[in-house]
Amino acid sequence: MKIKDFLAHNKKIIDSALEELLPVKAEPELITEAMRYSIFAGGKRLRPILVLSTYRATGGKKIDQILPAACAVEMIHTYSLIHDDLPAMDNDDFRRGKPSCHKQFGEAIAILAGDALFAKSFEVLQKTKVSAEIILRVNKMLSSTVGVDGIIGGQVMDITSSSDKKDRKLLKYIHTHKTGKFISGCMVIGATLANAYKNEIAALKRAGDMLGLAFQIVDDILDIKSTKKTLGKSVHKDTDKKKLTYPVVYGLEESIKKSTQLLEKTIAVFNEELRFRDTTELENIAEFIVNRIY
Amino acid sequence: MKIKDFLAHNKKIIDSALEELLPVKAEPELITEAMRYSIFAGGKRLRPILVLSTYRATGGKKIDQILPAACAVEMIHTYSLIHDDLPAMDNDDFRRGKPSCHKQFGEAIAILAGDALFAKSFEVLQKTKVSAEIILRVNKMLSSTVGVDGIIGGQVMDITSSSDKKDRKLLKYIHTHKTGKFISGCMVIGATLANAYKNEIAALKRAGDMLGLAFQIVDDILDIKSTKKTLGKSVHKDTDKKKLTYPVVYGLEESIKKSTQLLEKTIAVFNEELRFRDTTELENIAEFIVNRIY
Repeated sequence: MKIKDFLAHNKKIIDSALEELLPVKAEPELITEAMRYSIFAGGKRLRPILVLSTYRATGGKKIDQILPAACAVEMIHTYSLIHDDLPAMDNDDFRRGKPSCHKQFGEAIAILAGDALFAKSFEVLQKTKVSAEIILRVNKMLSSTVGVDGIIGGQVMDITSSSDKKDRKLLKYIHTHKTGKFISGCMVIGATLANAYKNEIAALKRAGDMLGLAFQIVDDILDIKSTKKTLGKSVHKDTDKKKLTYPVVYGLEESIKKSTQLLEKTIAVFNEELRFRDTTELENIAEFIVNRIY
Repeated sequence: MKIKDFLAHNKKIIDSALEELLPVKAEPELITEAMRYSIFAGGKRLRPILVLSTYRATGGKKIDQILPAACAVEMIHTYSLIHDDLPAMDNDDFRRGKPSCHKQFGEAIAILAGDALFAKSFEVLQKTKVSAEIILRVNKMLSSTVGVDGIIGGQVMDITSSSDKKDRKLLKYIHTHKTGKFISGCMVIGATLANAYKNEIAALKRAGDMLGLAFQIVDDILDIKSTKKTLGKSVHKDTDKKKLTYPVVYGLEESIKKSTQLLEKTIAVFNEELRFRDTTELENIAEFIVNRIY
């Protein structure tokens, strides 16, 4: 199956699970409308697909049973986008080609819709049909991935930093925390749900950290190279906002080179440390993530 | 022990557990500073104390082991206050006699500090020393208490409602969701941690729902009767903002009467349905909550 068909097929599975977990609700209508607006705005579902593919790669056979955990991950992702777009934060009017949540519903509802997706995420996680011990491990992983040592920590440094100082250490901190830890978290969650071996989980964490960093570098590059139409969100905003990005600090060519090197290292981990597993899906997703540039 | 001494003693226990769970952190300094600013702003810790007292009332003996769950509840409470105070929401400049989080740290950091306390809450909950099954039950209770069927649902209706229409059903919806379910959630969590009998948990839920409603009615009354100095936050803001409150809909006398009736019913549940347990602490807390008016 070609990667685009593979992603479309898996997106369908995630979308229908999300539909079931986030049904239209009678009351309070407005908040579920806002939650659904952002969840069904046309995301690629890369993070939940990474959960599914890592689960399969490490021996998981019952996708149906772990869909709630995959959806929990997408809810966390959507919450972070909604809050990130707020006027006080990145102040983005567009997301995935549509008005962002606060442009559509106002700031108050957007803040609450983000909060509600956050809460919902931990609620639906409980519906995963694995042992209580495994749910707890996933819960721990998810909450620490979001918190000050993960996404939120990265966001704080992101909004308080500026490209005036080309601080390489800070740049890496922001990217690994804001994006990297979540990508690697998804892979660790997938493997945990399949009850994979400890050394496999550790290897996937390392691979995920590298892939996640590559993911964010590619996002930086796309912000420069794309038009609003192809990207679906405001472009050149990093430059406008003097964001600390890889192209700003390392230049475009060097950034592309870095992302390609990280991809190679990621795939090397798959091939060496998970050589008794079929990691084809994971390799294809990793290549897709980095090759979005072209 | 007098109720004030009892509360002060238990607040000390909660505060020192919070100090341990939320230490000053090297990086990102700003966000932990904001989290700690709001957490240690001088709250009475009524919600975590309700967890402890219900735990003790239903046979729990090891307070030390369940302190993380009690702290998780306070973190959720503080997150909701921070977001509630934001300019897009209730736009309150003061909380507990100090500038609110966004006045002190700016809106972006306040949004993220709220999010981070939310994440931290689910992270510290895992540290509770009870079985995985019980942690999962508490987790479920906590996430649904916050979500669209709880606090967030209540907040949505609160910010979209107005006192122009004296809608009694809507008023009750807002108060039971915004405050009531959380108070009753704390009691259910305490009893769940003690592995109490199902019928006891059900009775405590009913008592908590009534006590929680009384709590919010008293808050409404205090907003009218207090000065900023005694209340520590902006007063008369409900009237200024045309909020739907009990005094607006029922008048002051009737509201006081309602809160007293709810207190009596709450205590009746303790005395009847938990008659084999010592509910003195719970009764004293309930009386304190309602008699704050005087």
